[in-house]
Amino acid sequence: MSPLPSPEIHTGATPVTVVRATSGGFSGREDAVANEEPLEIRVSYEKRGGLRVTRSLSVTMRTPGNDAELACGFLFGEGIVRDAGEIVDVGPAEGVAGGNVVVVSLAPGTEVDLGSLERHFYTTSSCGVCGKTSIEALRLKCRALQPTDAPQMDFEDILRMPERLRGAQGAFDQTGGLHGAGLFDASGGLICAREDVGRHNAVDKVIGSRLLAGAFPLSATALAVSGRASFELMQKALMAGIPILVAVGAPSSLAVKLSRQFGATLVGFVREGRFNIYSGAHRVRGANPAQ
Amino acid sequence: MSPLPSPEIHTGATPVTVVRATSGGFSGREDAVANEEPLEIRVSYEKRGGLRVTRSLSVTMRTPGNDAELACGFLFGEGIVRDAGEIVDVGPAEGVAGGNVVVVSLAPGTEVDLGSLERHFYTTSSCGVCGKTSIEALRLKCRALQPTDAPQMDFEDILRMPERLRGAQGAFDQTGGLHGAGLFDASGGLICAREDVGRHNAVDKVIGSRLLAGAFPLSATALAVSGRASFELMQKALMAGIPILVAVGAPSSLAVKLSRQFGATLVGFVREGRFNIYSGAHRVRGANPAQ
Repeated sequence: MSPLPSPEIHTGATPVTVVRATSGGFSGREDAVANEEPLEIRVSYEKRGGLRVTRSLSVTMRTPGNDAELACGFLFGEGIVRDAGEIVDVGPAEGVAGGNVVVVSLAPGTEVDLGSLERHFYTTSSCGVCGKTSIEALRLKCRALQPTDAPQMDFEDILRMPERLRGAQGAFDQTGGLHGAGLFDASGGLICAREDVGRHNAVDKVIGSRLLAGAFPLSATALAVSGRASFELMQKALMAGIPILVAVGAPSSLAVKLSRQFGATLVGFVREGRFNIYSGAHRVRGANPAQ
Repeated sequence: MSPLPSPEIHTGATPVTVVRATSGGFSGREDAVANEEPLEIRVSYEKRGGLRVTRSLSVTMRTPGNDAELACGFLFGEGIVRDAGEIVDVGPAEGVAGGNVVVVSLAPGTEVDLGSLERHFYTTSSCGVCGKTSIEALRLKCRALQPTDAPQMDFEDILRMPERLRGAQGAFDQTGGLHGAGLFDASGGLICAREDVGRHNAVDKVIGSRLLAGAFPLSATALAVSGRASFELMQKALMAGIPILVAVGAPSSLAVKLSRQFGATLVGFVREGRFNIYSGAHRVRGANPAQ
C-alpha cells in the first residue's frame, strides 16, 4: 500500500492526581491512568461507476496509538478488507480536530458488501441469536483447521507467553489498566505486542499491524491475550487464520464451542506453572491427544 | 409494571472437559466455563396513531440469566426508558427458540426518540469523537452532583465492598470468568449483585433490577465493579444517578474526566487495605477535602 501511514505516537497513559486512602491516613499523589478516547472508523471506497463515498462504520473506545492498525484490523475482522492490497491509504480524517477519526481508503475496484456494512454490529455478535446463523456465516469465511495443521508449541513456551507479553506492555506498568495482545511464533518468540483499554482493540491492532506489514498468513503463529477469551476474540483469531489462542484468564463457553468447531487450539488460565487446554491439545507438545 | 417477569434461571456456568497441563504431565479433568450467549434486545412501542411496532436495538454477548433486568437496564442507560412506569411487559420474543431474544414493551403514549434508537451505538460511545458532543449530550440528561450530595461512606466499608461482591458471585467461583457488579447502601450493605461475561451487562442487570423493583432513585447508593472502570461504566452510573463508583481495578482517563465533570466519586484499585480516590473524595469519610 502507498503511502504508508506515518509512525504514530503512543499515548497510553495520562497523569492524574489521586488521593491514596489507607488505614493510616489519606494523602495526595501523582499517578497515571490508561488513556481512553473514542475512535470513529470510516471507510472510503468507490461505488460502481467510480463515485467515491465515505461511510462511518464504528465508534470504539480505545487507547490512542496504532490507530491505523486498529482500523485495518477491525475491517479485516469484519470481513470488509480481505487483503492488504485493498488498502491504499489510512490516516486521520481531514478537517476533524483531535485525531479521533480515521479513514481507511480502499483501492478502486474493491468490492464492498453494503449489506455487511449495515449489519456489521450484527455480524460481530449475532452468533446463535436465532440458532447458529453467525457460526454458519463464519464458516463461509474461515475454513476449519485440520489436526495436522501447524504449529505445535512446547509446554514451556506457552507457559512463558504471559510474562513475555507483559514485558512488552509499557503502559500497563504505569497504569495497571490496559489489556495486552501479542502474536508469537511457534518457538514462543514475540512478534508483535499491542495494548488498549479494550481487549478486542488490542487484538485488532496486532492483526492490523501484521496485515499492514504484509506478514499474512498467520497460520504458524499463536495469539496471547492478557485477560479472558470471549467469543469475539476467538472469532478474530479464526478470521485471521491464527490456530492457537492463549488466554491468561478464563475462556467463555462460546469461545470454547467456536474453537472446537473450527479445530483451533484454545488455552486458558496460564499461571503458576500450568494451564488448561480447552480444545486442540494436539498442538501442545506432550499433551494427551485424546482431547 | 404488570405483568411482572417471572424469576429467571441463572445459568452462569457450563461444564467442560479440559486437559490440565503441568510440568508433571497432562491429564483430563472436568471444569466449568462462564456461559456466554448473545441476547438480542427489542423494544415494542406505539407510534403516533396507535400502530404498535417492534424494533431490534442491540445484540450483546451476555451470560444468560436476569435477561429482563439486562434489557431494561440497557434501555434505561441509553435514555430510551426513563421510568419503570413506561414498561408494561418484558419477556422472551414469541416464536423464537432459544430464549436469546427479549422484548421490552412500552406503555401506550411513551414517546420513543427514533433518532436516539438509530444512533444508539453512537450515543453510547461517541463522546469526544469530534470534540465533546457526548459529554454535552449526557449533561442534558444528568444533572451535575453537588459536593453536599449524599452519601458519605466510611473508608472501611469501601474497602470491604470487593469481598462482599465476590461473596455474592456464585458462578465466578466455578469459572473464574465473570465480571461482577453490586449496588451497596451507604453503610456498605449489599443491596443487589449480578454477574456476566460483559462488565457493562453486569451493571445493566443491577440497574435494571432496581428499576423493575421500583427502587429508584439510587442517589444514596454506591456501585462496585469487579474489574476496571471505563467511560461506559461511569456513564451508566451517572445516568442512574449513582454518585459513587468503586472499581477493584484501574479506571480509564475518560472515566476520571467524566466523574470529575459531573461531581461524582470514583474509587479504584481497592486492594490490600487501601484504594485510590480519583474524584469526589469528600464522599469518603476522613479523606482530604482538598481533592
